[in-house]
Amino acid sequence: MSRQQRAEIDAMVRRPRPEGPRSVEDIRAGLRALMAGMIVPAGIRTRATALGDRPAVLVEPLGAANSGTILYFHGGSYVAGSPETAMSLTGNLVTRTGSRALSLDYRLAPEHPFPAAIEDGLNAYRALLDGGEDPAATAFAGDSAGGGLAVTTCLAARDAGLPVPAAIVAFSPGLDLTRTGRSMDSRADLDPFFTRAGMEHTGGMYLAGQDPHQPALSPAVHADLTGFPPLLLQVGGNEMLLDDSTRLAARAREAGVDVVLDVTADVPHVFQAFAGVLDEADQALERAALFLRQHLRTGAAAPAPTS
Amino acid sequence: MSRQQRAEIDAMVRRPRPEGPRSVEDIRAGLRALMAGMIVPAGIRTRATALGDRPAVLVEPLGAANSGTILYFHGGSYVAGSPETAMSLTGNLVTRTGSRALSLDYRLAPEHPFPAAIEDGLNAYRALLDGGEDPAATAFAGDSAGGGLAVTTCLAARDAGLPVPAAIVAFSPGLDLTRTGRSMDSRADLDPFFTRAGMEHTGGMYLAGQDPHQPALSPAVHADLTGFPPLLLQVGGNEMLLDDSTRLAARAREAGVDVVLDVTADVPHVFQAFAGVLDEADQALERAALFLRQHLRTGAAAPAPTS
Repeated sequence: MSRQQRAEIDAMVRRPRPEGPRSVEDIRAGLRALMAGMIVPAGIRTRATALGDRPAVLVEPLGAANSGTILYFHGGSYVAGSPETAMSLTGNLVTRTGSRALSLDYRLAPEHPFPAAIEDGLNAYRALLDGGEDPAATAFAGDSAGGGLAVTTCLAARDAGLPVPAAIVAFSPGLDLTRTGRSMDSRADLDPFFTRAGMEHTGGMYLAGQDPHQPALSPAVHADLTGFPPLLLQVGGNEMLLDDSTRLAARAREAGVDVVLDVTADVPHVFQAFAGVLDEADQALERAALFLRQHLRTGAAAPAPTS
Repeated sequence: MSRQQRAEIDAMVRRPRPEGPRSVEDIRAGLRALMAGMIVPAGIRTRATALGDRPAVLVEPLGAANSGTILYFHGGSYVAGSPETAMSLTGNLVTRTGSRALSLDYRLAPEHPFPAAIEDGLNAYRALLDGGEDPAATAFAGDSAGGGLAVTTCLAARDAGLPVPAAIVAFSPGLDLTRTGRSMDSRADLDPFFTRAGMEHTGGMYLAGQDPHQPALSPAVHADLTGFPPLLLQVGGNEMLLDDSTRLAARAREAGVDVVLDVTADVPHVFQAFAGVLDEADQALERAALFLRQHLRTGAAAPAPTS
């Protein structure tokens, strides 16, 4: 079944790509439409809240919750997306871990370029800690640009002298605004979502003229990850961003950080969003949930796996 | 606790290393003594059996078993070890997956150099298939040299036209008799078990004059892994063999193989053998068991995790 599922997903997402740069509103509407098709698990309830100076969505399991908290960063190339567009991913982590999530509505480019999103992430984490949250029971997670923010917010927290969270989970993270990964070329014909021109278009909005050669913009190339918590990177084999993860994993190993680099072949960017349709998506989410359950000190028995 | 556990394990294994090459009998007795200290889980029963032309040990869960089978290859640098020395690892996989294991007593060097061990592995797998075993419900697993055999036996099976198993799990596999990994030098002062001279001593017994530049001896450098099943590589950060795994993972990614590269920092070679003493060991085994449960088509519900 699963090889057939991978082919079906591939055919579904492999659509003609528009010529020329798209407007910000087009990009935002396109991501909303794409992610509206994803299956949000039934076993959650959500509530609008705030974290630091920003809106956020609290996502809780309907059943008993443990004391863990996942600070979630949605994807969307730093210019699009919201807690709602990532709700399938966030909800799946919540139901599979038994921990609550807070999904942050961080500021987007081009209205708010770098480092606004990281500032919002750091403020949100500081608000959690100030509210009494135990860093040993807190994880960062995110997809795509949000996976990048999970990493760069942790860099900012460490550099600010805060205790780091207990774990980081990143789905297909964007970790290199210099765009120098070998997969930028080797996977260009395989990647159904991205082109170099498109990535430079949105990346330019986030950069707003800043030099990408710095750890907070290109951690896969420039960050020293010393002191980081255990890190799980999941990425698809058909991604131009593949080597963002392979290079960050190498840097993590050199810095003495526990790191799991989990690559699924023949699947696209953030394939975990196809949970409920693609077996590999559910399996990857279950591996991510086990990783979180192992590293979050929640003071509760781990729930049984759902698969 | 866990950082302290890692330091305690490190102090325990970091003993003065003997000067000069050790005799084969010394090496065998040393491994028996080391592994006799490992905790074998209670929930298994074992029985001597045969597989192909070789003795093997059948390891079954005391509770209900599913239809999965793990063909296990013990470690010992191709010159030492037996199903008994690896029973902690094999037993932990059995109790955590609910599948049975067959641990193969393959022929050892120097009495039986390359390719005797791979021939025994291939014969054992062929015997399983001839006996009606479903390759989709069969996995290969092993530690150290046995992790290498899990990979090279799969190469041999694929090249012989047999269906490949459903998954491979390798703990700190030896995958490069050319000894060209960067970690051979960068981890030399950290590795409590190995020296380059010691590895060349035992490696020479297995090679017996053969050229190490071939896929079956150095898959991390020379193997094309096309057609391989999902692969989990777990390795410690303090290992000279670290880059055997990082390079095999890179080759797997290039060949379109699902691959999880799972690195735990500050722990030694085959740290999973410290299950019951070192939290990271139990956690790594639980991740390996989830990986096996996800990929073995056992026709049974996955058992609840034990952690």
